[in-house]
Amino acid sequence: MKNINIGLLGLGNIGTGTYKVLEINRKEIEEAVGGSVNITRILEKDIDRPRDITVPRESFVSDPEDIFSDPDIDIVIELLGGVEPAATMIEKALLAGKHVVTANKAAVAANYHRLMDAAAKGNATLRFEASVGGGIPVLTPLTSCLKANRFTKVLGIVNGTTNYILDKMSTEGLPYDEVLKDAQAKGFAEADPTADVEGIDAANKLSILMALMFDHYVHPDDIPTKGITGVSGEEIEAAKGNGQVIKLIASAEKADDGSIKYEVGPMHLDDTHPLAGVRNEYNAVFVEGNAVGSLMFYGPGAGPLPTGSAVMGDVIEIGKAL
Amino acid sequence: MKNINIGLLGLGNIGTGTYKVLEINRKEIEEAVGGSVNITRILEKDIDRPRDITVPRESFVSDPEDIFSDPDIDIVIELLGGVEPAATMIEKALLAGKHVVTANKAAVAANYHRLMDAAAKGNATLRFEASVGGGIPVLTPLTSCLKANRFTKVLGIVNGTTNYILDKMSTEGLPYDEVLKDAQAKGFAEADPTADVEGIDAANKLSILMALMFDHYVHPDDIPTKGITGVSGEEIEAAKGNGQVIKLIASAEKADDGSIKYEVGPMHLDDTHPLAGVRNEYNAVFVEGNAVGSLMFYGPGAGPLPTGSAVMGDVIEIGKAL
Repeated sequence: MKNINIGLLGLGNIGTGTYKVLEINRKEIEEAVGGSVNITRILEKDIDRPRDITVPRESFVSDPEDIFSDPDIDIVIELLGGVEPAATMIEKALLAGKHVVTANKAAVAANYHRLMDAAAKGNATLRFEASVGGGIPVLTPLTSCLKANRFTKVLGIVNGTTNYILDKMSTEGLPYDEVLKDAQAKGFAEADPTADVEGIDAANKLSILMALMFDHYVHPDDIPTKGITGVSGEEIEAAKGNGQVIKLIASAEKADDGSIKYEVGPMHLDDTHPLAGVRNEYNAVFVEGNAVGSLMFYGPGAGPLPTGSAVMGDVIEIGKAL
Repeated sequence: MKNINIGLLGLGNIGTGTYKVLEINRKEIEEAVGGSVNITRILEKDIDRPRDITVPRESFVSDPEDIFSDPDIDIVIELLGGVEPAATMIEKALLAGKHVVTANKAAVAANYHRLMDAAAKGNATLRFEASVGGGIPVLTPLTSCLKANRFTKVLGIVNGTTNYILDKMSTEGLPYDEVLKDAQAKGFAEADPTADVEGIDAANKLSILMALMFDHYVHPDDIPTKGITGVSGEEIEAAKGNGQVIKLIASAEKADDGSIKYEVGPMHLDDTHPLAGVRNEYNAVFVEGNAVGSLMFYGPGAGPLPTGSAVMGDVIEIGKAL
């Protein structure tokens, strides 16, 4: 009987959602893995925060080395967020031979080769399905089912906050500031919304998509990036008059000569484009491949349970092979 | 250096598309597999039919046993279509220890347990991503990335012919007979469209989706099935007046008590439903899981190259593990 032990870095919103997915769907997860799956160590300072889950107090550790050096831990899940210290912890875990699952687009995008190298050196697997599109299966289909394609294009609505804001501005005619406040009240936008509204989060995700689809890594700082703060109600209305909607799109296109154009910015899309109907805080990734043609993956791009679904999906894929 | 040899059953439209995907994307496919990939034997009577591919004449065989008994063949791709003799050939190949990839929904749906048993007995893998949704990754994401979910619902536009017909009736106000003729002229409908317009093809796909999502197999003949021949222009117009569209939907829903309701038939969907915007001959599968929420996979549900993309994706997954 297989016994998979997990060390979890971070028990914030996403960590708690991931813990909960294992609690509520333990039967499905353990059947898929073919053994027991347990989160046995958790790196988290805030032990007493109310969470809707049951965590044994002895699971908590304050030193990440207690996880990396624990021979019983097979998989490390990193859900701290932010580039550092997360990236260094992922690297240490991989070098210690632990398989790593993360939802952290910022850490992966800023350190793509460093983390891939650490995985190779540690003979360990690094999976990050949740880092792009949250709960939507995107990276795994692109790198497995669709691997027999040469990709020519990707257009992604990969940030829920900005899609929510633009959608409400468009459908309800409300000004940017008012919709942002509403989004913050509903939990779709952070108190400091900069990373979302300036397109930085979308650029992280585009960096990961390009690395996997085109085998071409670009640091997110080097992706031309424009946010949505300059999009006016008048511009949205004018687009409507032309049968178009404005969406924040992370785009990359590969020409026949192999050159790749990429950027993040507001884009006018015809009403009939599959991405045009993506409403509220939903995400969607539209891709073109030379064999398959046009595809779109649509669903919840964030949130504790959807993200936890993707994280545990990665855990299952690793666990099946252990 | 790995050397993957494939025996192909059937070099019709889909077989030719699959052969062509290997021709045009050989580099990507062989890199992913980590070795060479070749179609070395082809079961096909019609050798001289003009095809836009280069096939050595010595590849053709007239007896499938020449493929099943060839120790150099690792994978059999079945693209004959129809239940028999395809199902028996898949079974024989699996029992002979060959891994099998098929796009054949009718054969898999009618013989699900028989083929799964043959795979287990032959210690071989059976993959059929292309059987539902054509080129769209559906079955693999449902059974890998999303495995940490209990699924509660699936609504599928899984037949391109009927979606094309209903869409043209709705958007252009044309009568059923006229659109069917147009679809036949464009190659979106067969000369005998019965399996499509009566919902039989969709029922095959729903049978496969239910087996994988709910671990609950129902023979397609036992799925209540209604086609689109009874959908009138008046009904479509009345739906529009209510902010709805009519789509042929393969649906299954699992209640809290574990009971499952399933059927294929025309369904009224609100304009705002993600499936409502699926136009022309495109397919889409909408699912709900208890962790991830609502998702949709959208793309080309048929056609030689999209189907070939999915078939070769399955070949890569098998080939990586060889």
